[in-house]
Amino acid sequence: MKEIYGGITTVQGFRSTGVKSGIKTSGDMDMAMIVSDEQATAAGVFTTNKVKSAPVLVSMEHIKSGKAQAIVANSGNANACTGEKGIQNARKMAELAALALRLPPNLVLVASTGKIGRPLPMDKIEQGIKLAASELSYDGGHKAARAIMTTDTFPKESSAEFDVKGKKARIGGIVKGAGMIDPTMATMLCFIITDVAIEQNLLQEALKEAVNKSFNMICVDGDMSTNDTVIILANGKAGNDIIDKKGSDYDNFCEAITFVTTSLAKMIAKDGEGATKFVELRIKGAKNDEDAIMVGHNISRSPLVKTAIFGEDPNWGRLMASLGSSGADVNQFTVDIWFDDLKIVENSVSTGFKEEEAKEIMKNDEFIITIDLKLGQGQAIMWTCDFSYDYVKINIT
Amino acid sequence: MKEIYGGITTVQGFRSTGVKSGIKTSGDMDMAMIVSDEQATAAGVFTTNKVKSAPVLVSMEHIKSGKAQAIVANSGNANACTGEKGIQNARKMAELAALALRLPPNLVLVASTGKIGRPLPMDKIEQGIKLAASELSYDGGHKAARAIMTTDTFPKESSAEFDVKGKKARIGGIVKGAGMIDPTMATMLCFIITDVAIEQNLLQEALKEAVNKSFNMICVDGDMSTNDTVIILANGKAGNDIIDKKGSDYDNFCEAITFVTTSLAKMIAKDGEGATKFVELRIKGAKNDEDAIMVGHNISRSPLVKTAIFGEDPNWGRLMASLGSSGADVNQFTVDIWFDDLKIVENSVSTGFKEEEAKEIMKNDEFIITIDLKLGQGQAIMWTCDFSYDYVKINIT
Repeated sequence: MKEIYGGITTVQGFRSTGVKSGIKTSGDMDMAMIVSDEQATAAGVFTTNKVKSAPVLVSMEHIKSGKAQAIVANSGNANACTGEKGIQNARKMAELAALALRLPPNLVLVASTGKIGRPLPMDKIEQGIKLAASELSYDGGHKAARAIMTTDTFPKESSAEFDVKGKKARIGGIVKGAGMIDPTMATMLCFIITDVAIEQNLLQEALKEAVNKSFNMICVDGDMSTNDTVIILANGKAGNDIIDKKGSDYDNFCEAITFVTTSLAKMIAKDGEGATKFVELRIKGAKNDEDAIMVGHNISRSPLVKTAIFGEDPNWGRLMASLGSSGADVNQFTVDIWFDDLKIVENSVSTGFKEEEAKEIMKNDEFIITIDLKLGQGQAIMWTCDFSYDYVKINIT
Repeated sequence: MKEIYGGITTVQGFRSTGVKSGIKTSGDMDMAMIVSDEQATAAGVFTTNKVKSAPVLVSMEHIKSGKAQAIVANSGNANACTGEKGIQNARKMAELAALALRLPPNLVLVASTGKIGRPLPMDKIEQGIKLAASELSYDGGHKAARAIMTTDTFPKESSAEFDVKGKKARIGGIVKGAGMIDPTMATMLCFIITDVAIEQNLLQEALKEAVNKSFNMICVDGDMSTNDTVIILANGKAGNDIIDKKGSDYDNFCEAITFVTTSLAKMIAKDGEGATKFVELRIKGAKNDEDAIMVGHNISRSPLVKTAIFGEDPNWGRLMASLGSSGADVNQFTVDIWFDDLKIVENSVSTGFKEEEAKEIMKNDEFIITIDLKLGQGQAIMWTCDFSYDYVKINIT
C-alpha cells in the first residue's frame, strides 16, 4: 500500500462535485454528490445515538440491499429532530437525486449535517441536486470535500493505492467533522469510494474494523451526533478477481481503508473546534485493550486535561485523576507518564522533571502523551485536541 | 425541620476555626479544624476514583471504628499522587492534630484539597495545626468554611434544626468545590456536624442517601477528583434518646441532612468554575430512575449544551443529541422539552416557540430545563451550570 494524493478523485469510475444550493446563508458550497458509473457494493456504519437523523434512518434502510450507486449530502441543515416530515424530506432528497441521475431511489444514499431541528428547505435541495447532477466530473472530489464542511476549517481528503491479485486498486475518502466529536462516532460524514471488487460482507467487516481503529479513537468534546455516517462504495473498476475471502488481498484492502480512515480521523482531531494543539494519547500496560480505550476516552474528554493542554501546563495530576475515574483497572501506585520522550511521572509520583522542559514540549502544535499502567498488555492509541477560548466562542450559538 | 442560619456554628458542642498556615501562596486561610467536645459517631463517603489521595486513604482507615472527634483539613495542596511519602505525611498530619488536641490519632480525620502531585509542606502544616488548635471557638465555623476554599468564589454553609423524640437537634455543614465536579462526587470536601445522637450504621446510611440525592446530582465539568470526602460527626449533645432504628425520628434526621447536602450541592453548581448560569435539570418519563440520571448526567456534562447555555442559545437539538447518546432508553419521537414553563419541543420536534421568548428565559441567572421522555415513571433532578470563557481561563494553569 502507498499513500497517493488526490482524494476520491484518484478512484476510477466515480464522478463527483460540490455546488451551492443556497442552504448555507454564507453562500458557500453546501451540496455534495458522488456517483459511481455502475452499481457498487455498499457498506455503512451509522451513529449509535438513539436519536438518529432522518437521512441516517433512510440510508440505513437503502443500504440493506448491499448496493448503491450515488451519495447525495447537504451541509447547513442536519434534518434531525424534524419528525415524520423530516423522513419524508430525506426520502424526497433520494428521489430527486434518483430522478436527476436516472437511478432507482433505493440506490441513492443521503446524508445531512448542520443545524438540528429545522425543516430541510426542499426547494433549495431540489435546485442543488439538479445543479450537482449537471456538474458531476471525474475530478470533482475536492469540491465534494468542500461542500460537506460546516465548522471545519479545511477540507479533509485522503487516498491510497494497494495491490490486489496483481492489479492496482485505489481507495479515497472525504470527511467532515470538527465539533460534537466523540470516540463513539461524530457529527461526522465520511464517504469512501474504492475501485476494488469485494464481496459485501467483507466490505462491511473491513469498514467496521477501520472505523473502530480510527473514528472511534478521536475525541474533540465527547458529544455524539445524530447524523454520523460512514459510507463506502466499491465499484470493481480495478478489474481484480473479486475479494471473496480473507487472505492477503483482503489484508491489503484493510490496510488501505484503515490508512484512509485514520488519516481522516486525525484531520478531524487537528481541526477540533477551537483546537490549537493535536495530542496523540498512547495508553499501554492496561489490563486489556478495552481498559486502555476507557482510559484514553476519559482523558480525551476531560475539560480539565484539555484546558491544561491549551494552557501548556504540565498538570499531570489531572491525567491521574482522569485515568483513575475512567472505570478501567488502575493500580494507583504504578503509573508512568511521558510527554514525548520526557518521563514526568514514575510509579505515580513526579520524576522531578524540569517544568520548563515539559512546557517546551507542550508549546509544539503536536505532541504525544504516553501512559503506562504497568498492569498488563492492553493498549490503545487515540487522538484528541485541546480546549480553548475559541471552542466556547464557536459553540455559544 | 426548618432551615436555620449560622452553618456549623449552630451545632452544640463543636468548636472550629480556619487559619493561615502559609500553604497558599496567596496568603489566604488554608487550614480548617473542627473538634467535638466529646467523642462523636462518625460516617464518611469518599471518592470512588481509583486514584485516591493520601488523606482519603488515611481517613478511610481511621473512620472504620465509627468514631472520631476532630477533622483537620488544608487547602492549597491535595496531597494526592505523592506516593508512600504522601501517606506518611497524611498520618503525620493526623498525629500533629492529635498531639495539639490531646486525642488519639485515630480519632482525627484528615482531608486535603488543591494542587495534585506536590509534597505537603509539613513545616507549614505543623505550624497551622498548632495555630488552629489554639484558636478553636464555638463560633469559628465561618472561618472553617473559608479556609477550605480553593477556586470557590464564596464560602458554602448550610444548617437546619429538626425534632427528634421531642428534643431539638441541629445539623450544619460546610463544603468546598467549584471545578472537577462530577455527579460521582467531586473535588469536594464536605464536613457535616450534628448534635443528634444516632447509631453509626444509621448515620452512615443516611449520609450515603443524602449524598446520592445531592452531591451525586451536580455536574460542573464531569471530572472526578482524587480527594472527594464527605464526613459527618454526630456528638449527641442534643440529649435525645439515641436514634437506633428507622422511623419518624430517623426520617426527620434524613430530611435535615438531605436539606443541608442539597443546599450545599446547589451552591457548588452555582459556583461552578466560570459559571454564569445555574440550571435545574428535571428529567421525567424515563423508563426508570437510573435512566433519568443517565440522561441528566450526559446532558449536564455536555460541553455543547453548556456552551449553548452560556450563549443563551435555545439550541434544543444539542439536548436531543445528548439524551440520545446517554445510554438511556429513548424513543426518538416522543420527547418533550420545556425551558421554565415554555414548551419548546413536543414529540421531538419544535413547538414553533418564539426564539425571543426562550432567549428571555435563558437570560436569567437561573432557569429550569424539563425533559419528558414519555416512556415510564423514572425521574431525576440534577443541577448544572454553563461553560464560559472563564472556565477555560481558570483552568489553563
